[in-house]
Amino acid sequence: MSTRKNYILGADCGGTNIKMAIVDDSGRLLHSDLQPIDYKKQPIQVVRDMAQRLKNFLARCNINRVKGLGVGIAGDVDPHKGLVRFSPNLGWNNVPLKEYLFKFLRIPVLVENDANCAAVGAYWLDARRDCENLVCLTLGTGVGGGIIVGGKLYRGTTGSAGEIGHMTIDYNGRRCKCGNLGCAESLIGAWGIILSAQEALKKNQAPILKKLIRETNEKLSPKLIEQAAKKGDAFSRRLWKQTGVQLGCVLSNCVNIFNPERIVLSGGVSKVGNLLLAPALATMKSRAFKVPAKTVKVTVSKYGEKLGVMGAAYLLLE
Amino acid sequence: MSTRKNYILGADCGGTNIKMAIVDDSGRLLHSDLQPIDYKKQPIQVVRDMAQRLKNFLARCNINRVKGLGVGIAGDVDPHKGLVRFSPNLGWNNVPLKEYLFKFLRIPVLVENDANCAAVGAYWLDARRDCENLVCLTLGTGVGGGIIVGGKLYRGTTGSAGEIGHMTIDYNGRRCKCGNLGCAESLIGAWGIILSAQEALKKNQAPILKKLIRETNEKLSPKLIEQAAKKGDAFSRRLWKQTGVQLGCVLSNCVNIFNPERIVLSGGVSKVGNLLLAPALATMKSRAFKVPAKTVKVTVSKYGEKLGVMGAAYLLLE
Repeated sequence: MSTRKNYILGADCGGTNIKMAIVDDSGRLLHSDLQPIDYKKQPIQVVRDMAQRLKNFLARCNINRVKGLGVGIAGDVDPHKGLVRFSPNLGWNNVPLKEYLFKFLRIPVLVENDANCAAVGAYWLDARRDCENLVCLTLGTGVGGGIIVGGKLYRGTTGSAGEIGHMTIDYNGRRCKCGNLGCAESLIGAWGIILSAQEALKKNQAPILKKLIRETNEKLSPKLIEQAAKKGDAFSRRLWKQTGVQLGCVLSNCVNIFNPERIVLSGGVSKVGNLLLAPALATMKSRAFKVPAKTVKVTVSKYGEKLGVMGAAYLLLE
Repeated sequence: MSTRKNYILGADCGGTNIKMAIVDDSGRLLHSDLQPIDYKKQPIQVVRDMAQRLKNFLARCNINRVKGLGVGIAGDVDPHKGLVRFSPNLGWNNVPLKEYLFKFLRIPVLVENDANCAAVGAYWLDARRDCENLVCLTLGTGVGGGIIVGGKLYRGTTGSAGEIGHMTIDYNGRRCKCGNLGCAESLIGAWGIILSAQEALKKNQAPILKKLIRETNEKLSPKLIEQAAKKGDAFSRRLWKQTGVQLGCVLSNCVNIFNPERIVLSGGVSKVGNLLLAPALATMKSRAFKVPAKTVKVTVSKYGEKLGVMGAAYLLLE
């Protein structure tokens, strides 16, 4: 009959920082923080730094005991062993992240791919756990995916499932960073979108965008391309429309294959709004099978940046 | 302590016939048969004919009681209601197949998409239920798919999941029969392969194939294209290679998304063998993520035509 709360710690390890969150066992967010991490050090030193950030965070929150830690990290993760097999962003190969973190923190640790964490977050937060099947797409620099089946994260045989960003939708298309051709990511990931814009800029096909880059002195980004489109740059408008159609093909594939109740979009590119989403949804409706297309609810997550770190914490509540 | 066996009836409704099977509750095949069905009649009359075929089959096998009937049928099926929402092959719209069959047979009936039945069959037979996750592709006139997750058929929200044949792999590509562009089926389904060969024949690009059609007086088919390739027809060889690459892209998508232990191929086109499979497997290996590609075992089903009808029966054992 204890009223003492169970606290759970979540962490989302990005390329330059670590996001941290504390949730209670009902899933409510109590505290969150973001701290820089220098990934240029040796992996074990990086993990020691992470552990120290987490300890300091707990101290600042006056919490001295947590049930465990869930960690999301970009790359190919073995969730059973808590091993980061390969993380191109962090430059890691076969780093035993769970073992290292346990060494420094002495609490139960779960390690999971960051897009899988976002899917768990979307299931708890956007869907309020009130659905059976959900697909989450994280539209950032790359495109990640996570799949919830029967209310649980679907990991596949080696924990590698859900790489929807590396689904081929144009099999003779652009070379993706993974080596494959025509992956969703190579077209609708921020790097793919930027590449298309760079090609147009070289050919002087996007004058308003060009002017905007000069004026703002900012690096080319989806946000700038959005602004250019809104200022009437014809190329930028076409690019968003085309990206929307390509996203629509990805959604349509998800609908035909998974027939999910929900598809939740997150990540920077999802914030572009209707420039991207209107053609995406129209394409999904015209391409996918009627009944599952009518059934699925596609939304942009309301929890943005916190989806991954909170989802990582929820892993311990699954 | 009864030694009396439980018998289960399975049926696979094709466009011109009904396949029937009886299995025991350990999954062993006891009897099977195939009978023609005239689908031009009213649906309720067609179902009455089916029921009569099944009754006669049971009588011939001296079995007067079965635990139930599982039915596989091509098209969009609502397995909860046992409703055939749409079956282009049979020309059916919203036919309450389960209700009709129960009316005539008075036994429990389960209705399922035929490719989903094949996946259940592949799980029981090819994988001997000794795996967690399996994807089955039926490579026939069309391309069907079925997904086993955690040892169970994954149906999705409205029972429409698993339409891997209608996964876009060439989003600006050929128009598929479903209305979408560049579906797997439009490229690697028998109708898509035949269409490509017809285009080449019109342009006189496949002389050996042309001669073969004239000599055998057979209709153009994957089998003839296979023979032409084996006789050295350059176009036919290229077509199989290209089809293999396209199948490889589908496999690669399945690997990156599902990370399955097994992928089982079945259907007429899968019998073409290495002309198709060698490029398919090479493409999968070069395109998919390394760890899941190394883990998956891809095989052609040993149970061929019986996969669907036996899988339909196994639905009652799930």
